[in-house]
Amino acid sequence: MTLFGGIEAGGTKFICAIGNGPNELVAQTRFPTTTPEETLSQAAEFFIRFMEKSHTQLASIGIASFGPLDLIPGSPTYGYITSTPKPGWANVAIRDVLQARTGCPVVIDTDVNGAALGEGKWGAAQGLSDYVYLTIGTGIGGGLIVQNRPFHGMLHPEMGHIRLPHDLQKDPFPGICPFHGDCFEGLANGPALQARTGQKAELLPPEHPIWELEAEYIALALQSIICVTSPQRIILGGGVMKQSHLFPRIRAMTRNLLNGYIQAKAILDEIDSYIVPPALGEMAGVLGAIALAQHI
Amino acid sequence: MTLFGGIEAGGTKFICAIGNGPNELVAQTRFPTTTPEETLSQAAEFFIRFMEKSHTQLASIGIASFGPLDLIPGSPTYGYITSTPKPGWANVAIRDVLQARTGCPVVIDTDVNGAALGEGKWGAAQGLSDYVYLTIGTGIGGGLIVQNRPFHGMLHPEMGHIRLPHDLQKDPFPGICPFHGDCFEGLANGPALQARTGQKAELLPPEHPIWELEAEYIALALQSIICVTSPQRIILGGGVMKQSHLFPRIRAMTRNLLNGYIQAKAILDEIDSYIVPPALGEMAGVLGAIALAQHI
Ligand SMILES: Nc1ncnc2c1ncn2[C@@H]1O[C@H](COP(=O)(O)OP(=O)(O)O)[C@@H](O)[C@H]1O
Ligand SMILES: Nc1ncnc2c1ncn2[C@@H]1O[C@H](COP(=O)(O)OP(=O)(O)O)[C@@H](O)[C@H]1O
Ligand SMILES: [Zn+2]
Ligand SMILES: [Zn+2]
Repeated sequence: MTLFGGIEAGGTKFICAIGNGPNELVAQTRFPTTTPEETLSQAAEFFIRFMEKSHTQLASIGIASFGPLDLIPGSPTYGYITSTPKPGWANVAIRDVLQARTGCPVVIDTDVNGAALGEGKWGAAQGLSDYVYLTIGTGIGGGLIVQNRPFHGMLHPEMGHIRLPHDLQKDPFPGICPFHGDCFEGLANGPALQARTGQKAELLPPEHPIWELEAEYIALALQSIICVTSPQRIILGGGVMKQSHLFPRIRAMTRNLLNGYIQAKAILDEIDSYIVPPALGEMAGVLGAIALAQHI
Repeated sequence: MTLFGGIEAGGTKFICAIGNGPNELVAQTRFPTTTPEETLSQAAEFFIRFMEKSHTQLASIGIASFGPLDLIPGSPTYGYITSTPKPGWANVAIRDVLQARTGCPVVIDTDVNGAALGEGKWGAAQGLSDYVYLTIGTGIGGGLIVQNRPFHGMLHPEMGHIRLPHDLQKDPFPGICPFHGDCFEGLANGPALQARTGQKAELLPPEHPIWELEAEYIALALQSIICVTSPQRIILGGGVMKQSHLFPRIRAMTRNLLNGYIQAKAILDEIDSYIVPPALGEMAGVLGAIALAQHI
């Protein structure tokens, strides 16, 4: 059996796994993200030890990483983490380092693109070729899969910073995006919920009026994302979307906002299976990384 | 020489041409759009007569058509004009009819996707693989090219109906989109300019304050489009964009709105060649159709 490696490179922890999919993982480990030297060594060691012990060469290793990343093919800093505020991690050649240490071909993409690919292979977007994965957590990020591949374009789309209608009468909160104030991320990420209410989003009860507002901003954003990319499905993940009561609200509001403009059964009659939660749970990130590796 | 046919199927006129590109057109004709029977016969006749006279078979014919179109492969109404309000043209199997009459393989896509492909081959997006063409006229429509192909997704992206911030203090106009009121199209298409000022957009002088507002809405829309698709370039066409003074305003406003969030030279230093007018002029549509034909 050909085996692949996967790394979910997160700002707080790394998860590494070896295998072929959710039911075929033969090894895994996790450890906190410290310095690049220590953390990348730990990751490389995990794969090297496995290969030595099992006398198996991994076909490739995928990294689904926090960013921003340079993903422009041919760029001198291709595969680098670029301008992150995370101490020590700016300008780290994460892909090159792991490729040199392990001797395996290493492919890298954003954490969201990884999760999107994983969901396409084994999760909530199986059988689809063109879809969107949006994560709503500390930040808001998006991945656009086109013909089963993460779309990059000039850099990579992020989706969090689109502009939305913002009724200051109804919601005087100015937004917390350092670049744009009240863009989508500035109005609707987890910290924006906390800034408005003085409580962590996970502690706000479902009947708190802020959830109605949150659903509305997400629905407004989805209208724009749908109009620009016409995805076959939209997966909504991230910490904030653990509030499962948001799904029915977002679906109803998105359909109302579109107001019959898009004559597609998926939206008119089947919106419950058009806007959906992820299916891969805790292992989504590292499985996405394995999906990336399989795509080389 | 292999020859291709192209049809720009517009709501008011059809343009047909035969050739290989802007400097290699061997025949062309145009006629008003009347009934589907008459107009499609005229188009078919043009190609049939050419093939008979020249004893040449066209390799394929492309149609860049007004819509909405069904472009879902495998759909029973694939290649139909679907729900257009244009009398007589709803549910017309434009692709099938022309394929049957001419005996040539016929490929169809939206007028905007055609124009986008044409600009990529011979015009303002040469050498790029991932870009956006946005037309701002009676309607607002967009085409997203991914890896040199029009992207379709579930239906096809339209872009005109994204939501924008709308400051009712500054611009109390409620918008004229029949579906959404003050979406991008409802605020910024040609008829919206006319509804606000009582004058056709082409008659408004460059110093009219509405142009500043128009540039702002377009820039807001571009921020969202850039954040969702990260294109390598954006081409702005359509009647309204004949106001060339809009370009410097839109560029400056888009850069200011993004506010350093996207660290790309194209936006920070070279926005004059990032947001550009089309290069193919009057023949863009039919050349786009020929580009479609060459892509079969
Ligand atoms: N169950 C929950 N309900 C609502 N918000 C949550 C929940 N869990 C986490 N969050 C919020 O989501 C954000 C963290 O997002 P998450 O996707 O878990 O990680 P990150 O975006 O940092 O990678 C925080 O703002 C947190 O308050
Ligand atoms: N030179 C111009 N300046 C500003 N607006 C224009 C100009 N020419 C046409 N328009 C406006 O553009 C719209 C027509 O758009 P156009 O792209 O030519 O065709 P359509 O969108 O109908 O295919 C009308 O609303 C018209 O008022
Ligand atoms: Zn922002
Ligand atoms: Zn609209």
